[in-house]
Amino acid sequence: MPTLILTRAEVKNLIDMPEVIRAVEQAFRDWIEGRAQMPPKSYLQMEKGDFRAMPASLPGAVCIKWVNVHTGNPLLGLATVMGVIIYSDPETGYPLAVMDGSEITAYRTGAAAAIASKYLARKDSKVLGLVGAGRQAYTQLMAHAVLFPLTEVKVADPLEASVKKLMAAFPTMKIKYVSVEEACKADIICTITPARGPVVKAEWIKGGTHINAIGADAKGKEELEPAILNRARVVVDDIRQAVSGGEINVPVARGLFNPKDIYGDLSEVITGRKPGRTDNKMITVFDSTGVAIEDVATARIIHDRAKADGKYLSVKLVD
Amino acid sequence: MPTLILTRAEVKNLIDMPEVIRAVEQAFRDWIEGRAQMPPKSYLQMEKGDFRAMPASLPGAVCIKWVNVHTGNPLLGLATVMGVIIYSDPETGYPLAVMDGSEITAYRTGAAAAIASKYLARKDSKVLGLVGAGRQAYTQLMAHAVLFPLTEVKVADPLEASVKKLMAAFPTMKIKYVSVEEACKADIICTITPARGPVVKAEWIKGGTHINAIGADAKGKEELEPAILNRARVVVDDIRQAVSGGEINVPVARGLFNPKDIYGDLSEVITGRKPGRTDNKMITVFDSTGVAIEDVATARIIHDRAKADGKYLSVKLVD
Repeated sequence: MPTLILTRAEVKNLIDMPEVIRAVEQAFRDWIEGRAQMPPKSYLQMEKGDFRAMPASLPGAVCIKWVNVHTGNPLLGLATVMGVIIYSDPETGYPLAVMDGSEITAYRTGAAAAIASKYLARKDSKVLGLVGAGRQAYTQLMAHAVLFPLTEVKVADPLEASVKKLMAAFPTMKIKYVSVEEACKADIICTITPARGPVVKAEWIKGGTHINAIGADAKGKEELEPAILNRARVVVDDIRQAVSGGEINVPVARGLFNPKDIYGDLSEVITGRKPGRTDNKMITVFDSTGVAIEDVATARIIHDRAKADGKYLSVKLVD
Repeated sequence: MPTLILTRAEVKNLIDMPEVIRAVEQAFRDWIEGRAQMPPKSYLQMEKGDFRAMPASLPGAVCIKWVNVHTGNPLLGLATVMGVIIYSDPETGYPLAVMDGSEITAYRTGAAAAIASKYLARKDSKVLGLVGAGRQAYTQLMAHAVLFPLTEVKVADPLEASVKKLMAAFPTMKIKYVSVEEACKADIICTITPARGPVVKAEWIKGGTHINAIGADAKGKEELEPAILNRARVVVDDIRQAVSGGEINVPVARGLFNPKDIYGDLSEVITGRKPGRTDNKMITVFDSTGVAIEDVATARIIHDRAKADGKYLSVKLVD
């Protein structure tokens, strides 16, 4: 039996944001309804970074993502985060595909945030603010454009060149290069920085705003002033991960935010067990840490499409 | 940067038992001396089997093995256990190689048992007994032949054809097809069955024997009568895994063996923190469950050899 080998360029070619959004939303339903499995991430600490093993299953699909974070990589011309996914047949264990996980990570993270916005942002949201113009800006913008009729995208980043590059990638979008404060004058704000201290001030956030806090994914990382959390309805993707390494991790450690004040998780909001936004004045925050069910949902799309195409490299990896 | 893709046939071609034995022994030293990392295995339970995620690092090497156990596979013409290893650069996280893990699993398991025999069996051991003539028989025999001047190998298996196949693979070895009782009249016995109840009786085991109990690797599996354990010096590869799914798991659950009576682990014996065999009359048992440091030690050999050869498929998997 052959195993498909799918490079990053091929994954990028096969992936499709609307489909990823549907699959990731379904994964959160499967999770809360007991049809998914997701053991806690395992971490291995290296001198210059770390590795995370993220296995998960959904009905009919199972995979592991092996992903690193090495913050010194850009100096070597390598991405900080790279990932490989092994996608297997739940019925036999056979490895159906080995694929790049970097592109999948970027898409599923964008998709999860846009899904959160769907339930937590105001229905009439039209202006998107991006704090950070790195890799994740592309998929946040792409995913939000699927679900919202965006009229304007305000982007803040220390490097104007990064914003210009983003503009070039989305020529039909009205993208403006602005300050962080100005980017926060938006219906939906996505914070996508590697910050280790608040870059968004509480005084900038007006009632009715929804914030996707994406950047914090490890202990010590933080993008929002804790006062924002105290005024907001805070929804997380995974409570344990949020407390240990999500946006709330620093405020929790300092006693500035109580984990009991988490409103609920994304599964609860999606399934209506807990209503999302209930009025137009409320501030809402989605604390995204990234969960493995998002990866397996997305890897399935890539595998199924590649298999249907029938033109990709496949090797007899195991037998 | 390219990622090497190494199929099972290629891994088999690159692997070398004496080198695996040296590397696995060094891995156990690295582990006890604090130079290795090995989070607990994660399990995902499927309807027809399970998956295990096994990450580990050694100095200069890190990998994850994603391995399944699907006992119904042989009816479909597939192996029960298959595995894929992603071998990465600890310095950057880059996936250096994706390789078959089945062959590596077989070799490292054989190597670990032979290392245990080196410290626990009588120095003058010459007769090897194999209870089971499946896949693992090959690598147990190969590894023991590296470390002991075997004059005879006694093999028990319900299927004579399996034993004939083993004989054909080792034409220069004196291999005899015998009963389980007769196979136990040996200096070193390796039990390599999928049994869920004792196949080796206590009355068959004479003083001076060393047993590698390999087959039990999950809850409910058991190959030896518990009375053997009570008379023996019992060494494990990993105490937690042994108690939950190794040879001792059933006796422990039934109160027939106390985990406090475990003599020590293989790292302690290898490094001399606890002496191995101390007299010629003693019965010794090595309870092998398989640990991820064995995999990363072996994966490094394969990667380094494949890279040096420079003739294997490599693809731009991530970037």
